[in-house]
Amino acid sequence: MSAMSDNQSVGIVQSQTAHFDTPLALSSGAVLPAYDLVYETYGTLNAARSNAILICHALSGNHHVAGRYGAEDKNPGWWDNMIGPGKPIDTKRFFVVGLNNLGGCHGSTGPSSINPETGKPYGSEFPLVLVADWVQTQARLADLLGIQQWAAVIGGSLGGMQALRWSISFPERVRHCLVIASAPKLTAQNIAFNDVARQAILTDPDFHGGNYYEHGVVPKRGLRLARMLGHITYLSDDGMGEKFGRLLKSGEYKYGFDVEFEIESYLRYQGDRFAGVFDANTYLLMTKALDYFDPARHYDGKLSKALQQAKARFLVVSFTSDWRFSPARSREIVKALLDAQKDVSYAEIESAHGHDAFLMTDAQYFALMRTYIANIETE
Amino acid sequence: MSAMSDNQSVGIVQSQTAHFDTPLALSSGAVLPAYDLVYETYGTLNAARSNAILICHALSGNHHVAGRYGAEDKNPGWWDNMIGPGKPIDTKRFFVVGLNNLGGCHGSTGPSSINPETGKPYGSEFPLVLVADWVQTQARLADLLGIQQWAAVIGGSLGGMQALRWSISFPERVRHCLVIASAPKLTAQNIAFNDVARQAILTDPDFHGGNYYEHGVVPKRGLRLARMLGHITYLSDDGMGEKFGRLLKSGEYKYGFDVEFEIESYLRYQGDRFAGVFDANTYLLMTKALDYFDPARHYDGKLSKALQQAKARFLVVSFTSDWRFSPARSREIVKALLDAQKDVSYAEIESAHGHDAFLMTDAQYFALMRTYIANIETE
Repeated sequence: MSAMSDNQSVGIVQSQTAHFDTPLALSSGAVLPAYDLVYETYGTLNAARSNAILICHALSGNHHVAGRYGAEDKNPGWWDNMIGPGKPIDTKRFFVVGLNNLGGCHGSTGPSSINPETGKPYGSEFPLVLVADWVQTQARLADLLGIQQWAAVIGGSLGGMQALRWSISFPERVRHCLVIASAPKLTAQNIAFNDVARQAILTDPDFHGGNYYEHGVVPKRGLRLARMLGHITYLSDDGMGEKFGRLLKSGEYKYGFDVEFEIESYLRYQGDRFAGVFDANTYLLMTKALDYFDPARHYDGKLSKALQQAKARFLVVSFTSDWRFSPARSREIVKALLDAQKDVSYAEIESAHGHDAFLMTDAQYFALMRTYIANIETE
Repeated sequence: MSAMSDNQSVGIVQSQTAHFDTPLALSSGAVLPAYDLVYETYGTLNAARSNAILICHALSGNHHVAGRYGAEDKNPGWWDNMIGPGKPIDTKRFFVVGLNNLGGCHGSTGPSSINPETGKPYGSEFPLVLVADWVQTQARLADLLGIQQWAAVIGGSLGGMQALRWSISFPERVRHCLVIASAPKLTAQNIAFNDVARQAILTDPDFHGGNYYEHGVVPKRGLRLARMLGHITYLSDDGMGEKFGRLLKSGEYKYGFDVEFEIESYLRYQGDRFAGVFDANTYLLMTKALDYFDPARHYDGKLSKALQQAKARFLVVSFTSDWRFSPARSREIVKALLDAQKDVSYAEIESAHGHDAFLMTDAQYFALMRTYIANIETE
């Protein structure tokens, strides 16, 4: 459906860039003297500045959350099904902000940006950025936009971790925290998958220690493998089975290493496409942010203790077939919130779409989001 | 424990090589004019030649199933805990045969062997070999050893597929069929993991289209990634969590791409070690044998129909935390056997060890194997 005919679309949108030159002290100890953040906004900030919602993106997301860049643009923002006038995150009521996180590759300062100190891309010089650091930069963006308090911070997966972190880092600045298909920290298996993905990139001969930009190459082989592997963990076993099963590309066994099964074709296509547009250093950085996320770490490993200071109300959502961040992981968050006597609603949505379900248009999920968000006050 | 002090060990063993020069017509249509199979035997074949057990190996296994190659040899065969005098597969009663499958890299003819027609390693010229082809070669080895009928064919994982195939290809030649931690065919997710592993090898610049031997290099990067990924699927999420959790190598976050978590150290070590000793072409071939295995394929997709001709009695075993080949997959086999009115016993063993459980010494599992095998008649 084109932007013009979709009366629930935010329509044609433009991104903006904010420059920050107050040095940013990162969790790793590194300091970034200055940086840009690219962002988009939809809807109108009310006079009280009390109707703003922040959307935090996951591993490969960005600031282009809803709408299109032109009448002919075929690809709307990544959460366009969720955000718009009359949609669950209703831009008739809310002022919605999406940004590309620091370290990204879609306009915010990241490893592929030019380091003003050297005149060359940062590459391996770009520091690791953690979830808590992103929340700091998001708070600075809120300051710039004149938003003292978010009506809600919403995110899925790695985005949900940011939402959760907001409630701890800035308890006064977030009224509702929506944590979808997320986890309080990665398991050994989660880290293991991430490390295989990273090793694929790091050992690609075209990686050049992260400084591939100056060699005129890109570690496509590694990034392609990383994405193929990631994709398996985004889909459920059953969902993949229903969609692809053992379907053959040509109907007959060919007995070779070219595509034999449809699932191979699909994964290779996804890998190739991604490796052509995403920056490998950003991918590495995002997976490390996932690995390091553990808000309970400085609270004797007790998440309920970390959440003690939170003032937001919470909605936690999980999906039954999500095995990357299973419902059990969401229930850990819910239990910690209950132990900390916080206000939390929890929903486990029946879905065959695995981790990706948080991006899909599911009736039960959307009804839940619509109802919850409709009850968020903007006064 | 050394070979000398373990009175339940088969002791010092030697492998033997059998040469076959009757051309072998493979499932793919290719013909292999001649080939070698390396094998080991433990125990004594009785006069009636009715006490022989065939052990089929999985993806990275080989013919060295039990015993040691010398008094100082620290690494016994891969199923030494299961096989020996007084062990569940008791070599006081049974004559046990293990072989390296055709296409392997431990002595049987495979991609790294010299092709007599060219005087160079086969490399990319080596044909794909399917489970049904292995069973054909195993039958020829049985002929050579004077074994008309196996008392049992036993295997775990890909080995279990061979055991199952034996009951279909040679109904008269196998009395008991033990199918452990296996599946009747791969799911889309199984194939997807295999394809990522293969793509890692195939796109390694050192792969040279499979003819790396003549370039004096080995696609170690790719094989290492393949093994790291495989290893994740051999362990359970919970088991990995219990063993490694989020333990840090150094106790503190280092904020870099060197090993941070213990699980990374473990996986990289496993990958490095494997890539140093295993042949990448064999790895590719083994994963394709897994992908293509589907005995129901020529029976309208009905496994019960494929098993109609089987005459063996079956023991099917699965492990609760195995998510590579989950208990549900074993139950598919059991259901097909019941539908075909075959004699089948099934056990679902409680274990946290994931797919690898079939190689571990678990009391319940071993008691089951001991009891079942003790009841196999050798007269």
